[in-house]
Amino acid sequence: MSRGGDGGTESGTVNSGAGMAVDIQEQPDMYARLIEPEHAKQVASAAAWIAARRPRHVVLTARGTSGHAALYAAYLTEIRLGLPAGMASPSTVTLFDAHLDLSEALVIGVSQSGRSLDLVEMMSSARKQGALTVAVTNHPDSPLAETAELSVDIGAGRERAVAATKTYTAQLLTLLMLIEGVRAGNGVLPAEERAALAVLPELAALTLADSTATELAQRYRFADRLVTTGRGYAYPTAREAALKLMETSYLAALAFSGADLLHGPLAMADPDVPVLAVVGEGPGGESMREVLAKLGERRADVVVVGPHPVAGTTALLRVPALDERYAPLLDILPLQQLALALALSRGENPDLPRGLSKVTSTR
Amino acid sequence: MSRGGDGGTESGTVNSGAGMAVDIQEQPDMYARLIEPEHAKQVASAAAWIAARRPRHVVLTARGTSGHAALYAAYLTEIRLGLPAGMASPSTVTLFDAHLDLSEALVIGVSQSGRSLDLVEMMSSARKQGALTVAVTNHPDSPLAETAELSVDIGAGRERAVAATKTYTAQLLTLLMLIEGVRAGNGVLPAEERAALAVLPELAALTLADSTATELAQRYRFADRLVTTGRGYAYPTAREAALKLMETSYLAALAFSGADLLHGPLAMADPDVPVLAVVGEGPGGESMREVLAKLGERRADVVVVGPHPVAGTTALLRVPALDERYAPLLDILPLQQLALALALSRGENPDLPRGLSKVTSTR
Repeated sequence: MSRGGDGGTESGTVNSGAGMAVDIQEQPDMYARLIEPEHAKQVASAAAWIAARRPRHVVLTARGTSGHAALYAAYLTEIRLGLPAGMASPSTVTLFDAHLDLSEALVIGVSQSGRSLDLVEMMSSARKQGALTVAVTNHPDSPLAETAELSVDIGAGRERAVAATKTYTAQLLTLLMLIEGVRAGNGVLPAEERAALAVLPELAALTLADSTATELAQRYRFADRLVTTGRGYAYPTAREAALKLMETSYLAALAFSGADLLHGPLAMADPDVPVLAVVGEGPGGESMREVLAKLGERRADVVVVGPHPVAGTTALLRVPALDERYAPLLDILPLQQLALALALSRGENPDLPRGLSKVTSTR
Repeated sequence: MSRGGDGGTESGTVNSGAGMAVDIQEQPDMYARLIEPEHAKQVASAAAWIAARRPRHVVLTARGTSGHAALYAAYLTEIRLGLPAGMASPSTVTLFDAHLDLSEALVIGVSQSGRSLDLVEMMSSARKQGALTVAVTNHPDSPLAETAELSVDIGAGRERAVAATKTYTAQLLTLLMLIEGVRAGNGVLPAEERAALAVLPELAALTLADSTATELAQRYRFADRLVTTGRGYAYPTAREAALKLMETSYLAALAFSGADLLHGPLAMADPDVPVLAVVGEGPGGESMREVLAKLGERRADVVVVGPHPVAGTTALLRVPALDERYAPLLDILPLQQLALALALSRGENPDLPRGLSKVTSTR
């Protein structure tokens, strides 16, 4: 449910990553479209509806790529709204028949296709248990959107490749607008928030114009494992980058929050295991310094994603400096490019990864 | 905070896995001790205290191995208590200064050492914000235990190796007794629950007497990556097994819930990537059939942990049949043995993994 477009790839029109390449390149224009009134009004009306109902805590439910967008929303919810947010495992409801008291909860289901059975069942159960329910999907006519009380369309348009790129960033931006709208109370973003979003399309285009990520793929041609890491808002980026690399290039990509990396998995890092570290400007990036120092002691090969080069690291995937709250909308872009280039250099087709299909149904 | 004993390994007394071997072997006796009245009464009194205060939702906070015990507690909380449970990232509070409204929440901090700075800070903030706060640690005099309103001692005794084994299972059993005690209302476990726990020591000894896990280590001597998977109650086991293998044997071990595995990472599975799948008796195990079938299509090399052999798989790490709620107390045992044997076959010392120390301090 978290990947791919309506009808998957169309034979004859795309092959060998051409679909994924177009999906990636469309993101700056998509950002421009999503901050325009048509989309913004839809999101603002949902935000005002939520704000008026004053939920006491937020439960997010999603899988795969959509799960990483939901994780970003969980950080936003806690930091910007002061409401505890948790990621629910649908299995407690769908397999173990849990009857959750959700009377004070806002339950947000995030799914590209809106067709994942377990999310639909979880959402239906949540609504019966008294939760406010909101579906965030790319398909407003999907079962998930129909099951939830309220549905928000992420407006990404049709995605060509099975590996999700623009539907992920559309989820991020829509969830950001939704949560900032709840914070505002009436759903309408304050002027400074709108100003920050207004420059996003240009910054995204600038980020994608850099060819470093594509060149860097050569370095990992024969890597069979890789670690990604980040803290706070950057942790979902680390998770999504790892999934993208696994889906398209079949390497073992392990994502850790910077803090968790120090609790055990650090033992695994050595010069043969490349590390992609998201190091932004702000408290999350600041707290990564200790992690980078420890990785340095283990002589790990580290590539930094962020605005500033870090001494002793191999390369920088440069993104413009931005508040860490917005940075996930840019940080993922060079990592998508890296996944695409790496897949192509390995002779794989990221538009149609082996063993995957566009809609994943699990209970 | 999630690993190791008080003073780490003592030079001269342990080396090359002797500490970890003893820690592992002590678990059946430890189970017997923990279900005796001295420990049970301590847990029951905490459970009664929680039950009387009727929290509306539960927030768990922990890292590393303790995070996997907390995840097990989250499943128990949702399924057995009907209360939504989420895993909190301390970074929202410690790095991004979130002020969470936790007035209706029970916040449980799980930490072997009780000395992880970010958990202490998170707990202190939660208490100020009106949450019920409970620390679950192996050190009742630790900062975490002193910061929380209530402290529960997991009673594991001193752990010899840096890689946590018996402190993990002591956390699992203590959290199980705590949550079932809350369910009972007065903290006292019902007779059928006590009967189920009474056979645990014997079943644990039986499980550890099997030498299959140790023999299986040979098969993975040159593996550099591995996937672990399970659903529901078995998912924390998959996560902990992966961490144990990374800590001791430095391979890239990726843990996925069975459902998430189908959402992308499946592409990575092939005959060169061994899979350890926890398949118990119950809805979680049942739902793994689809996952095993898909892995079979990809000709993955699968080892099953559970009571029954599965056709087409390589080997069975047999554990006695048990309700899935209790199974995590046994399922992890052969996986600990596998991690130990694999580390030794690679010439590594699991008592002192490179780059790690017994207490990990992160903010």
